[in-house]
Amino acid sequence: MSQSVLTEYLDFSIDLAKQAGAMIKEGVDKRMAGSGSIMAKYSNPSDMVTETDQAVEAFVKEKISAAYPSHKFIGEETFAAGEKPSFTDEPTWIVDPIDGTTNFIHGYPFVAISIGLTINKVPVVGVIYNPLLNELYSAADGQGAFLNQTTKLPLFDTNAIAPLKDLSECLVMTEMGSDRSSAVISRKIDAIHNLVASKEDPGVRSVIQNAVGTQVHSIRSTGSAALNLCCVAKGVADIFWEIGCWEWDVCAAVVILREAGGIVLDGLVPGDKEVNIFCRRYLGIRPTGDRESQLNIARKFWSVVPNDIDAPRDAVPGGYEP
Amino acid sequence: MSQSVLTEYLDFSIDLAKQAGAMIKEGVDKRMAGSGSIMAKYSNPSDMVTETDQAVEAFVKEKISAAYPSHKFIGEETFAAGEKPSFTDEPTWIVDPIDGTTNFIHGYPFVAISIGLTINKVPVVGVIYNPLLNELYSAADGQGAFLNQTTKLPLFDTNAIAPLKDLSECLVMTEMGSDRSSAVISRKIDAIHNLVASKEDPGVRSVIQNAVGTQVHSIRSTGSAALNLCCVAKGVADIFWEIGCWEWDVCAAVVILREAGGIVLDGLVPGDKEVNIFCRRYLGIRPTGDRESQLNIARKFWSVVPNDIDAPRDAVPGGYEP
Repeated sequence: MSQSVLTEYLDFSIDLAKQAGAMIKEGVDKRMAGSGSIMAKYSNPSDMVTETDQAVEAFVKEKISAAYPSHKFIGEETFAAGEKPSFTDEPTWIVDPIDGTTNFIHGYPFVAISIGLTINKVPVVGVIYNPLLNELYSAADGQGAFLNQTTKLPLFDTNAIAPLKDLSECLVMTEMGSDRSSAVISRKIDAIHNLVASKEDPGVRSVIQNAVGTQVHSIRSTGSAALNLCCVAKGVADIFWEIGCWEWDVCAAVVILREAGGIVLDGLVPGDKEVNIFCRRYLGIRPTGDRESQLNIARKFWSVVPNDIDAPRDAVPGGYEP
Repeated sequence: MSQSVLTEYLDFSIDLAKQAGAMIKEGVDKRMAGSGSIMAKYSNPSDMVTETDQAVEAFVKEKISAAYPSHKFIGEETFAAGEKPSFTDEPTWIVDPIDGTTNFIHGYPFVAISIGLTINKVPVVGVIYNPLLNELYSAADGQGAFLNQTTKLPLFDTNAIAPLKDLSECLVMTEMGSDRSSAVISRKIDAIHNLVASKEDPGVRSVIQNAVGTQVHSIRSTGSAALNLCCVAKGVADIFWEIGCWEWDVCAAVVILREAGGIVLDGLVPGDKEVNIFCRRYLGIRPTGDRESQLNIARKFWSVVPNDIDAPRDAVPGGYEP
């Protein structure tokens, strides 16, 4: 894939994200005035969809199809509606029309359109636009990652900032997520407990074998996995961890974080391979000049979160086998 | 207290917050370049202070003293240094030089100067300025609450938005906080567990007597109590709850939320009285046109959080008796 073709896809994605962002902004304005309908997916009151999610996805899908008729498409709302394509080497657009739908409903300003592109199954273009804070994150393979097209990520000089030393010095981004079943939520809560508790806390060691409290600096939650990962790409948070979000939440962000100098690994299973974006469990580590320090933090992280929490999914032929 | 005198105090506070904000912004820029020293208070690695916190408080205290020599002052850093004044009817400035110091250290963009003023022990002026997102929140008793001096809070029309109906429809802002002792953190975690778990979750009922999971929409954490309360004043989140923050974290925000049409109550003890800002436990409810719906949400909230979690403090003569 030539850089000039990637640049064309990137420019197309940026333009498309800005148009979609304008629709989202208009949707929030309508919400704040008390209108616009909301539905709950799968009868789960924590997993909601609005008419704006559906309208934005239809718009984005149509624009992609018109520009690149041979390309494949995987989107949150068409997936929810039953469209479950295989994952192939063909150029494939993976789109979340609104990441942060709960925020959209409340007007909480962390909502974004996320547009990712894979080629040969590798995420190579990513654009995420938050029209409420007017922040546009973009990256293409080999071209670096940017905020608002001009500010290179991370925001700091990796030579000036010390490499990641210890989990206890990390700011961690994670979410409660939409799966509130007892098994999933109780283990997420255990993980957070273990992350925040003091190293002397005896109550936590019993929860997860061999684990001890790590007293991380703290936990932050924006309500958008894509924007959480962008915070890590900026370098203003150190770690992103989430079990249960989907390929459309992370595809674009994986490119942005990788191009900024960070890494995205499996959220549960130790290993230094880049994550399979279909696996629904993700661990992102912020940019540093030192890959070994990133892997070291990842190893410590895996050791303090429960490894029996997992997010189920059906097989994606070519993408994921449970 | 005449409105014109309050307006003078408000204008003074806004001007001072902008000057302090410029110092904070400069401090963040230095941090991102890898400089500026950090100390941990009381040997607690989750409770940090930087040279910028101390410089900003010294600056603000000096400016207040020069403008209003007879007024009293309570600030986070002078308090930490051993200055523990009584609380009186005299005009008293209650200041947090940087709310969100952990964020400041990481460059995470939720940091703010918080300047509150009490007269006859009632918070009457509040200004909170986040120089990274350039958001200034301000309010004076009887004059309404504003974002950037022109946009009235809340951001929505209270006639158009339905009153608060059920806890399960609420977006809740809370924090892990800096007290990571086993007793405190485990009960905070229990509270969050109870808030997010599904109503059918049997595992949660045993944790807190008579409580059941409420499956709130979700949890959000910015890392700044003052800015969390401002989100509630905007109406983009429904509930703020925190045990363990201090009067300087909430004094200004209490005025802003109250003037926006919200209420701030005790975080643990049921009752419809406005909270004692020295009590270290706070429950804020967003603006609606309907006070009864706010109190109803507060009653439901108290019923699902542990009432044996509390944040200790020494007596504040005139302010608080443990």
